[in-house]
Amino acid sequence: SQMSRIAYVNGQYREMRDASVNIEDRGYQFSDGVYEVCEIRDGRMVDLPRHLARLQRSLHELRIDMPMSLAALEVVMHEVVRRNRIGYGIVYLQITRGVARRDHAFPTTPVRPAVVVTARSLSFQKNQDTAARGIGVITVPENRWPRVDIKSVSLLPNVLAKQQAREAGAYEAWFVDRDGFVTEGSSSNAWIVTGEGRVVTRSADEGILAGITRAVLIEVLAALQISLEERPFTPEEAYGAAEAFVTASSQIVMPVVRIDGRPIGDGTPGPIASRLREEFHRFAAFS
Amino acid sequence: SQMSRIAYVNGQYREMRDASVNIEDRGYQFSDGVYEVCEIRDGRMVDLPRHLARLQRSLHELRIDMPMSLAALEVVMHEVVRRNRIGYGIVYLQITRGVARRDHAFPTTPVRPAVVVTARSLSFQKNQDTAARGIGVITVPENRWPRVDIKSVSLLPNVLAKQQAREAGAYEAWFVDRDGFVTEGSSSNAWIVTGEGRVVTRSADEGILAGITRAVLIEVLAALQISLEERPFTPEEAYGAAEAFVTASSQIVMPVVRIDGRPIGDGTPGPIASRLREEFHRFAAFS
Repeated sequence: SQMSRIAYVNGQYREMRDASVNIEDRGYQFSDGVYEVCEIRDGRMVDLPRHLARLQRSLHELRIDMPMSLAALEVVMHEVVRRNRIGYGIVYLQITRGVARRDHAFPTTPVRPAVVVTARSLSFQKNQDTAARGIGVITVPENRWPRVDIKSVSLLPNVLAKQQAREAGAYEAWFVDRDGFVTEGSSSNAWIVTGEGRVVTRSADEGILAGITRAVLIEVLAALQISLEERPFTPEEAYGAAEAFVTASSQIVMPVVRIDGRPIGDGTPGPIASRLREEFHRFAAFS
Repeated sequence: SQMSRIAYVNGQYREMRDASVNIEDRGYQFSDGVYEVCEIRDGRMVDLPRHLARLQRSLHELRIDMPMSLAALEVVMHEVVRRNRIGYGIVYLQITRGVARRDHAFPTTPVRPAVVVTARSLSFQKNQDTAARGIGVITVPENRWPRVDIKSVSLLPNVLAKQQAREAGAYEAWFVDRDGFVTEGSSSNAWIVTGEGRVVTRSADEGILAGITRAVLIEVLAALQISLEERPFTPEEAYGAAEAFVTASSQIVMPVVRIDGRPIGDGTPGPIASRLREEFHRFAAFS
């Protein structure tokens, strides 16, 4: 029989079906909160310190207080992973500004931020099979607000873009800004490889979230002496690239074999993307 | 002693402190939902049919099913107003795509949309006093996504703008688009009155939510034979306007006496705004 999933919600470990938050949680009424997703491998969290550092930055930008020490938060995340017996999968952490009578402005009386942690198993083999085939991507006009550097739960544009991709038979949607350059995917960073074997991804300075997998991969590239160009690229450049791939905590490096219906390279996962996927965890930190 | 507030949540009437939704409600994780706010006067809902029509449109745009008939929803809203014994106040309705395991794309197995209805009393006298003084407004750069025509709970930019207004000693923030024109407030529509007594507000075709109070007020203007110009205006035109005001269901017509620290007209509520506030409910529909 399937094990029931356990979540941490504001101090308590609950079965998922009983895991709830108040209807006046500002996450529910205003998307006034942030989140992180970490990969779990062999029961350990991948690159947790970087995720927690980014979490702190997101909270700081929204002026939401960290509701517990990082050490305590780490204990909770470990406990959720343990209670759900996750070997391979993801852990999800969400912090919102807390519960207050509905008013757009921040609560005038400070409230305790709300904390939710969940985890779930993924099929390692299924993800490997997907990576062996590669995924399709579509491009859509960028329509998110400029503060995508904050990893907030204000994700409605991302939801609609991802749904549009699925309905087009693709796996991910890449946003294209008004200057014609790809920013990032609805839940991933976007990369291409040039004919000369140079890896290209947009700088994290503007228009994208500073992905953790992205940051670690840049270190992997340096270690493997693969050239990196941090610059924007257009869909047209991507159509003609030797390879393409996306990065995200839940997928690490996922080869892209089709963009807007056009095959990339020979239409199969490229050697550089495949190698980066294999090598990544030699460089990742495990907690 | 203060009466505890009652909310309707997915089929049940609950005390507010026990009114909760699952942590995997897509409203909480993705801001994947919509809402409406109606004014309550003398225990009756103001312009409810228009609010329900807009609700249907918002749901349609996001392809969220209406979870119950409009008639049933009306019954629930009436019941929440009744149980909370609201004479003057607001009723709040939120519908999200429902509870599903976290994935950006829509659930592949249809789920039941979640419905929350709350209500609360407001002080009529306090609102009248505020209207007699008038409010201050600041202008901020427009940074919301283009689909502001959908009344979604993806409100984080609105939250930050409203907070910025409060910290500047103002009540509302008006967004200014990249062409230099005011779009709307963080939770209201924006209006000015020219020196010739013509009322100006942006067309609902682009950049703003089609406000219900805005729509009814346009009918009020026609009935009172006051000229209307539906066109964008700049902050500079607003600084020099004879009057300014905002409209919202919770405030009806609220005079603006200061924009970015500059007094509007003689710095007190203008006669047209005050008259429109007085006359509005002669033209509103009560349910």
